[in-house]
Amino acid sequence: MIGQATAKASPNIAFIKYWGNRDDQLRLPANPSLSMNLGGLYAETVVSWLEAGGGDSFRLNGRDERGAALERVSAHLDALRRRLGVDSPARVESSNNFPTGAGIASSAAAFAALTVAAVAAAGATLSERELTTLARLGSGSAARSVPTGFVEWHAADTHEGSYAESIAEPDAWELVDVIAVVSREHKPVGSSAGHRSANTSDLQAARVAGAEARLETCKQAVLDRDFAAFAEVVEHDSNLMHAVMMTSRPPLFYWLPPTLTIMDSVRRWRAEGLQVCYTLDAGPNVHCICARSDAEEVSNRLHALSEILDVLHAPPGANATVISVNIP
Amino acid sequence: MIGQATAKASPNIAFIKYWGNRDDQLRLPANPSLSMNLGGLYAETVVSWLEAGGGDSFRLNGRDERGAALERVSAHLDALRRRLGVDSPARVESSNNFPTGAGIASSAAAFAALTVAAVAAAGATLSERELTTLARLGSGSAARSVPTGFVEWHAADTHEGSYAESIAEPDAWELVDVIAVVSREHKPVGSSAGHRSANTSDLQAARVAGAEARLETCKQAVLDRDFAAFAEVVEHDSNLMHAVMMTSRPPLFYWLPPTLTIMDSVRRWRAEGLQVCYTLDAGPNVHCICARSDAEEVSNRLHALSEILDVLHAPPGANATVISVNIP
Repeated sequence: MIGQATAKASPNIAFIKYWGNRDDQLRLPANPSLSMNLGGLYAETVVSWLEAGGGDSFRLNGRDERGAALERVSAHLDALRRRLGVDSPARVESSNNFPTGAGIASSAAAFAALTVAAVAAAGATLSERELTTLARLGSGSAARSVPTGFVEWHAADTHEGSYAESIAEPDAWELVDVIAVVSREHKPVGSSAGHRSANTSDLQAARVAGAEARLETCKQAVLDRDFAAFAEVVEHDSNLMHAVMMTSRPPLFYWLPPTLTIMDSVRRWRAEGLQVCYTLDAGPNVHCICARSDAEEVSNRLHALSEILDVLHAPPGANATVISVNIP
Repeated sequence: MIGQATAKASPNIAFIKYWGNRDDQLRLPANPSLSMNLGGLYAETVVSWLEAGGGDSFRLNGRDERGAALERVSAHLDALRRRLGVDSPARVESSNNFPTGAGIASSAAAFAALTVAAVAAAGATLSERELTTLARLGSGSAARSVPTGFVEWHAADTHEGSYAESIAEPDAWELVDVIAVVSREHKPVGSSAGHRSANTSDLQAARVAGAEARLETCKQAVLDRDFAAFAEVVEHDSNLMHAVMMTSRPPLFYWLPPTLTIMDSVRRWRAEGLQVCYTLDAGPNVHCICARSDAEEVSNRLHALSEILDVLHAPPGANATVISVNIP
């Protein structure tokens, strides 16, 4: 073994969504996005660069992965090898402390942790900014899981230009993501294929054209802790992304009947005075973003709805971090 | 009494949707639309022009209407009086043979029948083309309930230019609209207010820009009786309209949980070989447009779903017609 490192990284939930690429290969997004890391939830990944000979291996939650999952990890390792000047195979062992299929995008946390661990295991030290661009190559939204707290991911025409950076620390605003799980099924169309379909919607160009203005509105609302302004732009941006999805050809419908029930309930609860709004990724589960003071009430009300399988809680989370390094 | 006439007109279901006006006052639509009259369902309306003195009156389904409903009818009568050179009040008595609140837009049938009856009761004979423009002033989609069968309503910048005309007779294609009623509640936001909100969506311009091409595709599919092409463009156009609705500010969500279930089922049934597709107006009920040979099977499958309140059937319908005239 040449070197080994362990890193952990949290998934994130986007307030201003990433949907569609200007370059699928480099995962250069069509528009900038803004997210919050999900504290308490994380992927923990050990990367071991091995003596030459043999191929890469990938173990996820205690199970050896082959096929498409290994290929995707291996392709990402290729990009890291090129950057690091490493010519060795790697053993990757990763586990999530959150349930698989809970509607939490695990690839962001996975590729952020993998990138940070692989760089450390090679004995290299790269800027956070460069780490975000490298993580992006594995999974676009992984760029946002590298910096801390509330994170902006820039859209650009170059690899170097499309990086992510923190706009506020985790303690900047006491929000909680109360996640209503309504399905544990794997989504019928994965995110990578979904991103490639975005331009088949007549509506994508208009969604992208307004994204920068929405991001500025959302960023200001986060910095001002202005929940009313935040809720309006977050729900609007989520609706826009799903509008693009359901008007793509073929259409992508990620909502299930209980998804609609929860979205409608959240709007009603906010009208009644609770600080809560919804946002949805490419799946049916509903992320209810609440003021911490209202999180328990929102959670209780969600539990009272039928067809809710589980409710998870996540406060703002920290950056991807190296836990240990061992370079003999 | 100066003159009296009775007319009947069917509601219609749009395959290419009308949503948003270029002129709210004249109800000049943002884009052209295409529809099918719903045979067997109709509004029957008696208009009596009275001796001068007194105001208009409006009786709907045996009940005297006042307030907003009477005002809307009276405003439409004003437009007809101007065109006809009539200076008398009118008594309007209308009834629908289809259940109110069944998710069938009744205003199209109502204003088509009212217009045709009022003109006949004044002893006037106008071209069908002009009747469609007059009906449009009362309710935009009423223009489409005047001609027979499958109808195109043109978008234009002038009152005269925005008329409707039949593109095919009712027997041109054996389709059936199998209407799945999932709610009898009145919609939270009526169509007139909805049309006015269309431009608050960033996506409306893109929807409108593509409407003419979708209409041509749909028209050709109707004329060719090409169900596969028809289904794709009809569902896509419905999805586009609802995408605009849910991204308006404030957003308009017309779908209920069973709406999603039915849409998903219809897509699956079509994949299994049934000739069926869905389209939705500004409400939660689902119009399942079927080949006549598959209508019974679709109806049976809809009845088997929970949360279906009722299922109605309508084949292509005829034009608005004068049933009787009495000018003493």
